Amino acid sequence: MTTPSRRDLANAIRFLAADAVQAANSGHPGMPMGMADIAEVLWNDYYSHNPNNPTWFNRDRFVLSNGHGSMLQYALLHLSGYDVSLADLKQFRQLDSKTPGHPENFMTPGIETTTGPLGQGFANAVGMALAEKLLAQRFNKPELQIVDSRTWVFMGDGCLMEGISHEAASLAGTWGLHKLVAFWDDNKISIDGNTDGWFTDDTPARFEAYGWNVVRGVDGHDADAIKAAIETAIASSDKPTLICCRTTIGFGSPAKAGKESSHGAPLGKDEIVATRAALGWEHGPFEIPQAIYDGWRAGNAGLVREDQWNTLFDKYAQQYPQLAAELTRRAHGELPEGFSAAADAFIAKLQAEGPVVASRKASQMAIEAYAPLLPELIGGSADLAHSNLTLWKGSKSVTSDPDSDDGRDANYIYYGVREFAMTAISNGLGLHECFIPYDATFLVFSDYARNAVRMSALMGAHAIHVYTHDSIGLGEDGPTHQPIEHLASLRYIPHNDVWRPCDAVESAVCWKAAIERSDGPSCLVFSRQNLAHQPRDAQQVADIARGGYVLKDSVGAPELILIATGSEVGLAMQAAEQLGDKVRVVSMPSTDVFDRQDQAYRESVLPNSVRRRVAIEAGVSDFWRKYVGLDGAVIGIDSFGASAPIEALMPHFGFTVEHVVEAAKSLG
Amino acid sequence: MTTPSRRDLANAIRFLAADAVQAANSGHPGMPMGMADIAEVLWNDYYSHNPNNPTWFNRDRFVLSNGHGSMLQYALLHLSGYDVSLADLKQFRQLDSKTPGHPENFMTPGIETTTGPLGQGFANAVGMALAEKLLAQRFNKPELQIVDSRTWVFMGDGCLMEGISHEAASLAGTWGLHKLVAFWDDNKISIDGNTDGWFTDDTPARFEAYGWNVVRGVDGHDADAIKAAIETAIASSDKPTLICCRTTIGFGSPAKAGKESSHGAPLGKDEIVATRAALGWEHGPFEIPQAIYDGWRAGNAGLVREDQWNTLFDKYAQQYPQLAAELTRRAHGELPEGFSAAADAFIAKLQAEGPVVASRKASQMAIEAYAPLLPELIGGSADLAHSNLTLWKGSKSVTSDPDSDDGRDANYIYYGVREFAMTAISNGLGLHECFIPYDATFLVFSDYARNAVRMSALMGAHAIHVYTHDSIGLGEDGPTHQPIEHLASLRYIPHNDVWRPCDAVESAVCWKAAIERSDGPSCLVFSRQNLAHQPRDAQQVADIARGGYVLKDSVGAPELILIATGSEVGLAMQAAEQLGDKVRVVSMPSTDVFDRQDQAYRESVLPNSVRRRVAIEAGVSDFWRKYVGLDGAVIGIDSFGASAPIEALMPHFGFTVEHVVEAAKSLG
Repeated sequence: MTTPSRRDLANAIRFLAADAVQAANSGHPGMPMGMADIAEVLWNDYYSHNPNNPTWFNRDRFVLSNGHGSMLQYALLHLSGYDVSLADLKQFRQLDSKTPGHPENFMTPGIETTTGPLGQGFANAVGMALAEKLLAQRFNKPELQIVDSRTWVFMGDGCLMEGISHEAASLAGTWGLHKLVAFWDDNKISIDGNTDGWFTDDTPARFEAYGWNVVRGVDGHDADAIKAAIETAIASSDKPTLICCRTTIGFGSPAKAGKESSHGAPLGKDEIVATRAALGWEHGPFEIPQAIYDGWRAGNAGLVREDQWNTLFDKYAQQYPQLAAELTRRAHGELPEGFSAAADAFIAKLQAEGPVVASRKASQMAIEAYAPLLPELIGGSADLAHSNLTLWKGSKSVTSDPDSDDGRDANYIYYGVREFAMTAISNGLGLHECFIPYDATFLVFSDYARNAVRMSALMGAHAIHVYTHDSIGLGEDGPTHQPIEHLASLRYIPHNDVWRPCDAVESAVCWKAAIERSDGPSCLVFSRQNLAHQPRDAQQVADIARGGYVLKDSVGAPELILIATGSEVGLAMQAAEQLGDKVRVVSMPSTDVFDRQDQAYRESVLPNSVRRRVAIEAGVSDFWRKYVGLDGAVIGIDSFGASAPIEALMPHFGFTVEHVVEAAKSLG
Repeated sequence: MTTPSRRDLANAIRFLAADAVQAANSGHPGMPMGMADIAEVLWNDYYSHNPNNPTWFNRDRFVLSNGHGSMLQYALLHLSGYDVSLADLKQFRQLDSKTPGHPENFMTPGIETTTGPLGQGFANAVGMALAEKLLAQRFNKPELQIVDSRTWVFMGDGCLMEGISHEAASLAGTWGLHKLVAFWDDNKISIDGNTDGWFTDDTPARFEAYGWNVVRGVDGHDADAIKAAIETAIASSDKPTLICCRTTIGFGSPAKAGKESSHGAPLGKDEIVATRAALGWEHGPFEIPQAIYDGWRAGNAGLVREDQWNTLFDKYAQQYPQLAAELTRRAHGELPEGFSAAADAFIAKLQAEGPVVASRKASQMAIEAYAPLLPELIGGSADLAHSNLTLWKGSKSVTSDPDSDDGRDANYIYYGVREFAMTAISNGLGLHECFIPYDATFLVFSDYARNAVRMSALMGAHAIHVYTHDSIGLGEDGPTHQPIEHLASLRYIPHNDVWRPCDAVESAVCWKAAIERSDGPSCLVFSRQNLAHQPRDAQQVADIARGGYVLKDSVGAPELILIATGSEVGLAMQAAEQLGDKVRVVSMPSTDVFDRQDQAYRESVLPNSVRRRVAIEAGVSDFWRKYVGLDGAVIGIDSFGASAPIEALMPHFGFTVEHVVEAAKSLG
């Protein structure tokens, strides 16, 4: 083989994709075949990475927002020299392989974020580009640009139809993320066929309306045109860029190119033979000639790139040892030395002082206490800063002038009313090792962001989702704003830790836990209304972190156990007073964390033999059957709420001491 | 008082809003004060309704998408003559009043849809405008335009920031809903303050990119300008219209106009006094002079309007008795005579024939059987028509040429990849009495639409949400596409009926139930993979509709009960074979419906004394503790899934006969 053409290099992607999908008898060949030429130009001429070290600090980020085209990314990783072998490609879509149906950040080196749920990869990328911008602002020096990378996104029509694309693009435009470059795979085909019937937007005009730099009408199969477009994007100094690439889905397939039949099913053996002939690709399935590999290999260039950066960073570390140490610490995902002890001291102080505040206020107090220690903490709210109480004294908006040199770094994000993009941007920030992001809205509007919360958990992203106004206790705003099923529904997301603290002390503990939990998300759920302070000894304070603990014990063995969370813990404590001294009260701020404790601890809190149990929570009652069984009682709420002051609502829905006492007594 | 000016009329809204919020000590005065002038022009000069009959068939629809400004709508209803009294206004935000914190369609005459969750009202309105267009296509005759109404929407910056605004606006543009008119309350203030920092879109350009008619730069406090804009909107014959109104939030308040402090809190007594002075409003709280009422009352005009329409309709009924009868039937929300019997016959036939198909295929078979009887059935999918199997032989796209006179009506909606707007549009269609809408996506992507599902349930909208690919059983697409927590989470939404049928017969039953359930939504959850047919006698077939029933009973009293849904029912039946004849198998296609059965029936299916119970469902296990208690066992899945063929996945996650048998035996 002579020196391969760019088209030859791209065809290697096409056939790896088509053949792997065929071997799996499942998958999406059309997109990789359509975007292969774009990917070839980007990865071979621009993408700054090191296949030998997929987590090299200063790498560019590549996000495949149209994640169903995963074979495109696996082919790129394989060809350019990541630890993704031909054997791995042959295992496409098989159990435990490095090549699952959609790209999974925890399965495959070089995958920055899990994609597939459309539009979210794009929003993750906005978060990553924001991370880069903020790190550059904090750490770069005129002569030492140690943070200098781009974020590249591939996205399809599906991503652009999703509402989250609107939210994320709007924020990227507002923030002027000029090192973010998105490629639109404009192939006019989605699963249901030609998009003329359901996707008639003028997308370039739409993105211009967001303040983006838009490169229109690029032939996505013409390497020179793609290069020119990328050059235009790189030249943009104040706006993100959308490159609109006209492509043919399933490019090269005589019978299926340009048709939805190439989207989500194998081309078929005969059609792949015909495609080989049409594209002049003479190699068998999973056969890549050395000359093709030679055209793709990026390992050596990557080593050189990383070496050069290491030299730069060494220089930086000499001149700015403190900043270098901070960056190194953050890049390793390590908390500052002393954080844990400082947090414990704050918690002990709260226990001693016993402030009676709303837990949303307690949340703010915790942020005030912890944030000064944590330059990596970056937060925001979906237009509810003063309701969620997410601002603190050191907050500085990322939308403020980046050059304003008041010695502080931007650490607060005004997300506007965009819960879904906010959460997916948090995920992008959280996947970037250097940040611990928090976001916030009312608990009921976690619905708007729900799949991004799920993605936090699936990806193991370090993200903190703050949800205030946690029950009917919010009062007058009524049922549209009153969560009922949300606590249970969030707890059911695997690998997601949900906390609903009962007072300022538990609030501070859950913030500490969320900051220290680096391999997954935490949802912190806070009240609008004031909550009583609860007495605890030091052991009880320590046990809060176990998710559930005995807040008030019985004299002798318990004959009845009351289990409660959040605002209902106070109710349980008052009911216990009336029910006599054989009653134990368990505070259960996090069922997720409690369920992870060892059997002995769980048995010590909830002895199996004690079946007279009452759970109390202003949310769906059935969730609590896992703790009270068929024979216990639950004071919950299984209808929608109502609009009224809290003083009227709580009795109306049965959240009274009398009702708890009655339920307990009815257990016989 | 002399004849009041338009400003005087608008000021009545302003002070009813400010005073009611003050009386409640809670609420949002800013928006009503800002949009009062727009509302005054619209309602007094254009809005076609009849306050004496809020559900008059040919009425215009008014949707307050920025629902926090509910006092605007209550003031309009009161002033124009609906059954909303001054006493009701004084009860703003109190328990059981007609004036809850946000507009609720089930609390107040004249409220078409519940709003508050931002952006969704706008999408509901798109559904209502689509309903009007489709009804007009079916029923109108050149000389007899019996369907002729407009849909008017108020929306704020928050609605426009939300992603759903993108999805809904795009579809409205594609469908050319020219009788839809949206007013943007462009006041540059959201809760966090001046929107310059987080809302920099060129919104008019964005809407033009969707194919909307945009009227820019209207002074929202100038009645003539507002009138001119509305005239432009009415003149649009092929596009929906966005009227961009520059307004001042809290208009009239000397200290708080134009500031976020007027948004969500009472102005304060002194400030209201100052506002009275500034606007020259000399009347006390809740005092409306007769001249003001005279300027507002719309009752007589409404009666005339309805009378005229009745005359028109009588004429229509004489010339087109069949169409008139159909319209009358549909407007009363009645199913065609004979539907129930026909459905039962279809179900009996399926039971006799026993097809072994995927339940998504069974769903399509049910649609094929029922849809020809139901011209009101209108459906669609979020770009997954051939995966969800929502198309049937009689499907005709609403995007096809409306004038194509092939004797059939459009009844199928290609929604594109827009799950949230799809579901909210379903709600709009379902609130319109004349349609039974269904929508569809993969179960996992119910997440994207989640709050709209909740709103279906809260509003009691007749909507059918079809979710296919219901478990890890979907296979290779992997964890992003595999629902785990979704069944439980949807069941926890109050007033939502979730069905997960185990074979073609149960699938047909759940479709029938969903069609007949007119006061709330149903989620129908179907498998990708084939499911075995289950034997039943006639009583068992009848009992499917009770949500849970004994599919295979024990010989004598049961010693063990296996409870399963969907694809796991087959597993339970096989395990029962091995476990001997003291085992009962309960199929539980709908826990929501089963839980509503009387105690005697529930006890007959799940006798309290039988505690050896095993529940089997490919979803989170804890949900089933409500049926198996602390002492039973659950075969569920509490982690994310994985990418692999179903044959590998099901054993990997423990869904085998052996595992069920083992779990049952371990109960001792």
